[in-house]
Amino acid sequence: MSERSHCGFLSAEQVGQEVLLKGWVQKRRDLGGLIFVDLRDRSGIVQVVFNPDESKEALETAEKIRSEYVIEVKGTVANRDESTVNPKMLTGEIEVIAKNIEIINTSKALPIQIEDETDATEEVRLKHRYLDLRRQSMQETFLLRHQAAQSIRNYLGGNGYLEMETPYLTKSTPEGARDYLVPSRVHEGEFFALPQSPQLFKQLLMVSGFEKYYQITRCFRDEDLRADRQPEFTQVDIETSFMSQEEIMAMTEEMLQNVVSEVKGVKINLPFPRLTYEEAMERYGSDKPDTRFDLELVNLSDLVENSGFKVFKQAVESGGKVSAINVKNSADQFSRKDIDKLTEFVKIYGAKGLAWLKADEGTVNGPIAKFFSEEEVEGFKNRLSIEDNDLLLFVADSKQVVAESLGALRSKLGKELGLIDQSAFNFLWVTDWPLFEYDEESNRYHAAHHPFTMPQDDDIDKMTNDPANVKAQAYDVVLNGFELGGGSLRIYKREMQEKMLSVLGFTEEEAKEQFGFLLDALEYGAPPHGGIALGFDRLVMLLAGKTNLRDTILFPKTASASDLLTQAPSEVSQDQLKELHLQLLEKEAKSK
Amino acid sequence: MSERSHCGFLSAEQVGQEVLLKGWVQKRRDLGGLIFVDLRDRSGIVQVVFNPDESKEALETAEKIRSEYVIEVKGTVANRDESTVNPKMLTGEIEVIAKNIEIINTSKALPIQIEDETDATEEVRLKHRYLDLRRQSMQETFLLRHQAAQSIRNYLGGNGYLEMETPYLTKSTPEGARDYLVPSRVHEGEFFALPQSPQLFKQLLMVSGFEKYYQITRCFRDEDLRADRQPEFTQVDIETSFMSQEEIMAMTEEMLQNVVSEVKGVKINLPFPRLTYEEAMERYGSDKPDTRFDLELVNLSDLVENSGFKVFKQAVESGGKVSAINVKNSADQFSRKDIDKLTEFVKIYGAKGLAWLKADEGTVNGPIAKFFSEEEVEGFKNRLSIEDNDLLLFVADSKQVVAESLGALRSKLGKELGLIDQSAFNFLWVTDWPLFEYDEESNRYHAAHHPFTMPQDDDIDKMTNDPANVKAQAYDVVLNGFELGGGSLRIYKREMQEKMLSVLGFTEEEAKEQFGFLLDALEYGAPPHGGIALGFDRLVMLLAGKTNLRDTILFPKTASASDLLTQAPSEVSQDQLKELHLQLLEKEAKSK
Repeated sequence: MSERSHCGFLSAEQVGQEVLLKGWVQKRRDLGGLIFVDLRDRSGIVQVVFNPDESKEALETAEKIRSEYVIEVKGTVANRDESTVNPKMLTGEIEVIAKNIEIINTSKALPIQIEDETDATEEVRLKHRYLDLRRQSMQETFLLRHQAAQSIRNYLGGNGYLEMETPYLTKSTPEGARDYLVPSRVHEGEFFALPQSPQLFKQLLMVSGFEKYYQITRCFRDEDLRADRQPEFTQVDIETSFMSQEEIMAMTEEMLQNVVSEVKGVKINLPFPRLTYEEAMERYGSDKPDTRFDLELVNLSDLVENSGFKVFKQAVESGGKVSAINVKNSADQFSRKDIDKLTEFVKIYGAKGLAWLKADEGTVNGPIAKFFSEEEVEGFKNRLSIEDNDLLLFVADSKQVVAESLGALRSKLGKELGLIDQSAFNFLWVTDWPLFEYDEESNRYHAAHHPFTMPQDDDIDKMTNDPANVKAQAYDVVLNGFELGGGSLRIYKREMQEKMLSVLGFTEEEAKEQFGFLLDALEYGAPPHGGIALGFDRLVMLLAGKTNLRDTILFPKTASASDLLTQAPSEVSQDQLKELHLQLLEKEAKSK
Repeated sequence: MSERSHCGFLSAEQVGQEVLLKGWVQKRRDLGGLIFVDLRDRSGIVQVVFNPDESKEALETAEKIRSEYVIEVKGTVANRDESTVNPKMLTGEIEVIAKNIEIINTSKALPIQIEDETDATEEVRLKHRYLDLRRQSMQETFLLRHQAAQSIRNYLGGNGYLEMETPYLTKSTPEGARDYLVPSRVHEGEFFALPQSPQLFKQLLMVSGFEKYYQITRCFRDEDLRADRQPEFTQVDIETSFMSQEEIMAMTEEMLQNVVSEVKGVKINLPFPRLTYEEAMERYGSDKPDTRFDLELVNLSDLVENSGFKVFKQAVESGGKVSAINVKNSADQFSRKDIDKLTEFVKIYGAKGLAWLKADEGTVNGPIAKFFSEEEVEGFKNRLSIEDNDLLLFVADSKQVVAESLGALRSKLGKELGLIDQSAFNFLWVTDWPLFEYDEESNRYHAAHHPFTMPQDDDIDKMTNDPANVKAQAYDVVLNGFELGGGSLRIYKREMQEKMLSVLGFTEEEAKEQFGFLLDALEYGAPPHGGIALGFDRLVMLLAGKTNLRDTILFPKTASASDLLTQAPSEVSQDQLKELHLQLLEKEAKSK
């Protein structure tokens, strides 16, 4: 009996056996001279009974224990009286009659209750993260996280992908989000950067001939934080040589199918549906559409280009568009006031207004109904499949504003009207991304994905003259409206990479300075290669049915990028700074 | 035939089949109007033959290819003529008769030959790491590294250990080696630190009740580099609750046995031998003894405490010791000059000299032989098992100097005399470590392991008065003379942790400031816990039979902590620094 048993694994099969248990006191109740303790370990909870007939000494010790004390109990598994069987508890048929108890450690009264539902503020939870993590829902999330990682590793390892570790102390690159910098002690005035992703290293591994690489790795971005961003996050990073876009997508699908099956017991159908970027923007107003509900955007531009309703006509004439969504069978649920609120909502996204119609008795009503001809109304009916009591919401604006405002409205209504099947896992590919994005502020083109993405063969000629219309050999995988990951085929010839950097505004010298090692590598027999990177925290969040990314990370940072538990970041000594050849900038120097 | 075949996996079984191959040109030979190409991919090499009878066009294209071109070949597997079978090649029985070839990418002439033995300098190899990694021995090492990681993950996952990710942006601690610092943009004047190990986080996970944690994780130390040190290194990090030292050691042994078996096909016997720290120092002069050969240090102090040889007598009298090693059957191989060289060698370690005797005709000779009585000589003979032609080497000095100098001499002679079985994997535990180390420079005690290590129960009373003699519940695992990893049981009560920090010289306030979150956590039902951390790079090095740690890391840093490939670290812009509230220290300010 020196072997420890686990609370949650005991069952009626062990009745009569002596067991040794170690764990935490979830709850103690005193009743009729007996003490009942819910004893918890990682496996679950079992009831332990202290009973003067069994051991007076144990009972006396048990009187000292409080919630979250750590105890060791020896006792005998017994059936509960039928009247006290607890069907809500996995071990509810049995209890352990204690012969012996030892208090291993005590606990002060807790700032957080170790219960599944907590009303503690997030601040308190993060400050006492080690207690917050004791709650069952947290324990389950991190078990799931482990299982998801294991499933991915098994799949990739089984398919010839080698786990390979790329450096964390790397070179700072000027592209994209801000790097976290690490000053060098040895090299005065120089800095390492923490990687935003292992992109270049994994490409170099392909040049090295490893052919199949993966890594579940940490990445770092010093961005202004939002609810779903963390300064450090985990990425499932994959790269492969000689495989086509189709092959990489098929591999990714199979891997994700595997994870969902092993972790959730849900079978996802393959292949995943696909949308081009253009189609996604047109039909969902989003490049990461949530397809768990319809409420699609319908383009009506061609119907209204000569409309008597000037707002619509002018939008189309000036190169914009008119789209609408049909909120089925809901006209009676939306008052004028409700619609005013929706109008305020779309204005956040730049829309100047929200036009609306309600369908009733075979036709459409509303303040703007009078502007439309019979043909136009017929057109709406057909294209939007209008039935009585449908609410139609229109935005007429530039293409971007129509997509963003109606896309956001679609998401909002989908949630608020309960249209979303919360048990579904809707995976989706978005393909044929633009290679470049025009940045108004800096008045130049940026890489939409990253500067190593291969353009589509047919568009290569347009790179210099018409970059806006060059499509990339890139693919994003979307799950339930979240961008789960993105991948692409990479440029594997020096000339093409140089051309790409030049379109992005790099001089020859800058290109060499920043990416010389890559350009060189591409001249020594670089194979065609491509890959994908998946946000692992986000995948876990969606699999665990959570809505807060911080609930999927053991020790997350707050929205202001600090760790409330250890109080990091913190000040360091002058000596430490001096060793790094640094000093803090004085306030006056800064304001210059 | 659109499915790709792999060069190294082809065999006589495929004769007659059409195959599609993609890979690199290892070598091209032109012979009698034919072209022979050794085509390489990750799986190995196969010979491809271009033959005008099969395809003139393919032959013409093949004339253009050079070493390391990336090509795609379609052809038919055929048996080689018996005369051209190459038994040194795995695929040496067959060849592929090419029907078609496509040049996918070209290659300039290489700065490094892609051959197993290279005479390129390490500088060139690191600068062109992507080419260096193409060499077969490198490919094999990283395949082995992947397999070792997989084996460890499978073992730990299968035994209930959860893979859990601790933060990389953490709080700077003043203990031990230097932290790499990461300035915060959001929190002016504050810094994160990259973790030297996840020690405190894994302990907090035990307080959280996860019970079994593991992580193969990167750690960072800004130390002055030596050949076997890297600024970032990988650690197999394990922590568990409620397990005894014996249980943790047994688990570690089984895990390592598994790795060696799966990666090398070698069966290691369990349990590993054990030495206490004291015994290891006494018998091997090392806390990480290489037990692949004998040549043990033998303590002769009691025999010579009244010796006529003053040097020996005085060493013992002043609290030091006299030890010797017996270099068996080697007296005739060591001239006076050779021994002088050994004397110079031990002086590096602080020894004032090296006494020696040679055994011949049943007695011992040498310049100091005359000082010893017959009993002393008899004593030497018995204790050192002296036979004719043995060479006996003595050091008489402080205990530390005797251990270090004779320990180093033992290693040197073991290597030079070829006493080491290079195929052996000699694992070993070193236990009962001192808890504290006295640091002359700062005139205070340091934690020998780390400040969270549990003292042995019997020694707790000595912590304040006699710290030098407190032993730790700590254990190191040693492989072939390398420290592979170290572990301990941890302090799990606040009072004990406070006591420990106080012995280490922390004021109450400093203890709270640095480790308040840990001290707090220990008050809320912390379970007894302990663990171990293994150097993964070093494990891979030893399994792969390498001697340079850099050969086990994909993109290592040089001894001056820089990356020759990407030229990191590097300068950053003034804007970047300003955002981080930093400026470079000017030289004059530094010299103050």
